[in-house]
Amino acid sequence: MKFKRTERIGAIVKILSDNPNKIFTLSYFTNQFNAAKSTISEDLLVVKNVFEKLSLGRVITISGAAGGVKYIPKTSKAENEEFLMGLCEKISDPSRILSGGFLYLIDLIYDPSVASKIGKIFASNIDYAEADYVVTMETKGIPMALMTAKAMNLPLVIIRKDIKVSEGPTLSMTYVSGNSSTKVESMSLPRKALKPNSKVILIDDFMRGGGTIKGMVDLMNEFGAEVIGTGVFISTTNPTEKMVKDYISLIELDVNGNEIIVEPNLKTFKDEYQNEDLEVEHEIEDISDDEE
Amino acid sequence: MKFKRTERIGAIVKILSDNPNKIFTLSYFTNQFNAAKSTISEDLLVVKNVFEKLSLGRVITISGAAGGVKYIPKTSKAENEEFLMGLCEKISDPSRILSGGFLYLIDLIYDPSVASKIGKIFASNIDYAEADYVVTMETKGIPMALMTAKAMNLPLVIIRKDIKVSEGPTLSMTYVSGNSSTKVESMSLPRKALKPNSKVILIDDFMRGGGTIKGMVDLMNEFGAEVIGTGVFISTTNPTEKMVKDYISLIELDVNGNEIIVEPNLKTFKDEYQNEDLEVEHEIEDISDDEE
Repeated sequence: MKFKRTERIGAIVKILSDNPNKIFTLSYFTNQFNAAKSTISEDLLVVKNVFEKLSLGRVITISGAAGGVKYIPKTSKAENEEFLMGLCEKISDPSRILSGGFLYLIDLIYDPSVASKIGKIFASNIDYAEADYVVTMETKGIPMALMTAKAMNLPLVIIRKDIKVSEGPTLSMTYVSGNSSTKVESMSLPRKALKPNSKVILIDDFMRGGGTIKGMVDLMNEFGAEVIGTGVFISTTNPTEKMVKDYISLIELDVNGNEIIVEPNLKTFKDEYQNEDLEVEHEIEDISDDEE
Repeated sequence: MKFKRTERIGAIVKILSDNPNKIFTLSYFTNQFNAAKSTISEDLLVVKNVFEKLSLGRVITISGAAGGVKYIPKTSKAENEEFLMGLCEKISDPSRILSGGFLYLIDLIYDPSVASKIGKIFASNIDYAEADYVVTMETKGIPMALMTAKAMNLPLVIIRKDIKVSEGPTLSMTYVSGNSSTKVESMSLPRKALKPNSKVILIDDFMRGGGTIKGMVDLMNEFGAEVIGTGVFISTTNPTEKMVKDYISLIELDVNGNEIIVEPNLKTFKDEYQNEDLEVEHEIEDISDDEE
């Protein structure tokens, strides 16, 4: 089958966009579209421009034997702000307050487009270059953790509350959850779930005192794994002192009786769209020269 | 900002592809790209061709006041077969067999790219035109259910095993799980999770006797909701008689001591890429005529 230029570009965008952080070789595209390497290199420059111009992320090349092109999802600061402001408006609806001071949020955090956007924001603001896994604890954090893992192109690991006989030898641990009153809970993970000496990113939906995240860090240490980044969707303003230090949170929340004070945690965000154009463009041209 | 044709096409592909089943008006694109409607209409024809030629799904138009263009994810029969054959090969590795005859599968079903593909396959083979929600039960089915919900552009609802005080008034129920020995378990869902008279799609990772799905159907009926489609990832060949009738399964499995017999359930798949080109192309041209 022959493809027109416009068709090739559309197809390349689709392939890269569906597979964040996955490397595609030039040969992959030349085979797919029955086209010369120089042609594909030109296509890739256009593709790169589309992503940059519309702040959809970055397309970069990796040189060397295992080299190729990959798409890195990046959200811009302005886009994060707009998205999170919209969420905060929904969250601050007083009808969300349940007895006990809890907030009903599952309609939002289970929404695939919300989870997907949260995943891209975490991937844009946590350094995962060295990471082997995204780790979360069941249940509410799973959708956003999965979308984070998708954006980072990493496997997802889910810590369970109960021991599952159906998953083989399991390492279990207790931890102190600080949900208003102090409570001892358990978490468990199959031995096979992590390779030795792994580096992991922790993702969870909600942090009050930080007891759950602290428990997850301890469990990772039992596995000989190192936590190199932590993202929580909502953190509460109280207590100000959390049991963990290094984390980012996207939204800060305080519930005072019938009043919900909620705002985007804008200090979290890096702005990723600056002065990177020339360097990347240059790299893409290089790859075509190398291989021809 | 001005965009070249190739850039517009790349950007339209990205926007449609990131938002399956979401309708974008022509005006959305004319504003975004500062271009005339006739120009965007021509772009959309190219975009449509890209999707058809590479079997990436379909781009169709909806006429009327709420009309516009949307992308419907569709996987081809050949693609499903190749993907599921690859998974079956991994599943049939004897080292996956755990004591008790269980299979270790979480590395596969939590993998974001696997879950994403399963979601697209469910969306290609279950009719969700009338559906309001995708419903699953925690925990293992969540990743594939989320990706199904994403492909269908529907909210996700997760049934919990325990009652969560933090989610408000909850409807709970017991059901009989047929995991080797008969066992009574419970499931619960917040009252607010479903609107009255909803139509839902059930998604789960594994079906042996069908007790869990049957329980989910009963719970949906308690909510006044109707199940209009059910997808399970793996169903066992035994028992042949399941407690539910209308479902599709992607893989059939039998474990006999140390032997794992597993194969794609190919009778499940419709082939969606036939004789639809002319009709769709015509619709896209219509929209441009209407609005100019």
